[in-house]
Amino acid sequence: MQNIMIHLQFDGSGFHGFQRQINALTIEEVLLGAIKKITGESPVLTGCSRTDSGVHALDYVRNFRSNTKVPMDKLPFALNTKLPSSIRVFSAQAVKEDFHARFSAKSKTYIYKASTAKILSPFLPDYVYHFPYEINIESIKKAVGFFVGMHDFSAFMSAGGSQKTTVREVYHLTAEMADNNIIFEITANAYLYNMVRIIAGTLLQVGSGKIAAEDIPSIIAGGKRKNAGITAGAEGLYLKEIIY
Amino acid sequence: MQNIMIHLQFDGSGFHGFQRQINALTIEEVLLGAIKKITGESPVLTGCSRTDSGVHALDYVRNFRSNTKVPMDKLPFALNTKLPSSIRVFSAQAVKEDFHARFSAKSKTYIYKASTAKILSPFLPDYVYHFPYEINIESIKKAVGFFVGMHDFSAFMSAGGSQKTTVREVYHLTAEMADNNIIFEITANAYLYNMVRIIAGTLLQVGSGKIAAEDIPSIIAGGKRKNAGITAGAEGLYLKEIIY
Repeated sequence: MQNIMIHLQFDGSGFHGFQRQINALTIEEVLLGAIKKITGESPVLTGCSRTDSGVHALDYVRNFRSNTKVPMDKLPFALNTKLPSSIRVFSAQAVKEDFHARFSAKSKTYIYKASTAKILSPFLPDYVYHFPYEINIESIKKAVGFFVGMHDFSAFMSAGGSQKTTVREVYHLTAEMADNNIIFEITANAYLYNMVRIIAGTLLQVGSGKIAAEDIPSIIAGGKRKNAGITAGAEGLYLKEIIY
Repeated sequence: MQNIMIHLQFDGSGFHGFQRQINALTIEEVLLGAIKKITGESPVLTGCSRTDSGVHALDYVRNFRSNTKVPMDKLPFALNTKLPSSIRVFSAQAVKEDFHARFSAKSKTYIYKASTAKILSPFLPDYVYHFPYEINIESIKKAVGFFVGMHDFSAFMSAGGSQKTTVREVYHLTAEMADNNIIFEITANAYLYNMVRIIAGTLLQVGSGKIAAEDIPSIIAGGKRKNAGITAGAEGLYLKEIIY
């Protein structure tokens, strides 16, 4: 029995305009169905992170045990024939017995995309968060540094998490703006529930002048969700990379 | 009563995964509903071209008569509040009484996007045509020139058109490839039914070696649909610009 790690990408917008959106659970169901069809097995499937409806992944990792005889370089193509085109497996490899997609992760990087265009392109509603306000990118760049380091991020957490501690270490956080598009990139050892979306929402409101950049340290220290900014939409969030 | 020209963009993929896709007709219905809500009127809406399900528009033009008191610079925002986010009006202006979105057009430019990636990104199935074969871009570049000029394009027309003549003038046609992505751009005075998609499919098959570049002139001259290549998918087609 091998421990198999697969890397996949998915478009989390699913059937946009409808209630039925793809999230980690439905992706798990769909993947399990594909694995069953290809291997005849129904393994436990371990995912690298919780993923809410509408969130995208440029690199999502799962692992499962299998006795399949399908060669690892053929497995992605085999699975993809049984998956919807909004979920693609890009690689499969046998890994050490104790590898666990979630617990073995050392850090994860997310990107968050927003647009300040007055009229949002009809191609983007499922792929960027629309924040149609004047933005001062210099204020945002001043604010990002306050998030880096080890902090109690209670103020940047939605209710519903189940963590033992609310302390997380942010290794890096950047903000870049080109035309009307803002991209945040954040790497941390782990995240609280909705942490990236609340940091993104807070930084956008720093940009629009609703929150002062210099207030970020006291917002973090205060630990009160109500003092941080909005929870920016799931559509702008992309899991980019996981380091093991 | 003013003759109003509006420029819009739309994502033709509509509710992907479902039968119900957006096409010119449903966009017309939806737009008429928005115009009725904003102006109280039910005008005749003239579109610049036929658009099949799944085809996208980066610049689509319509015109209609109206007595609306809404200023032209506010009309796009007003209409957008009544439209789905996959259809956006970007501008509105009063034009000459005899302007007609279709008959006044001097030329139209389309782009066509294809990907030769072995595994297509899950973000692209509705936005590029997947052609997962080895491509020789130099063969394609050799073939494009044969299409330029005034020709009877009968071999590049699907059944279902209603034109008086099958002669069209192609002003320019280019092919560019970067990584796995191919983009064709074509400008012509007018087009036969599915002409761009059949030219794109034929050029892709020139690239994959199925059709020889030097056979293009005789395929055009022969006028037989069966000698041309495949009709590449609607998802890769974008109406880019109309010149009046």
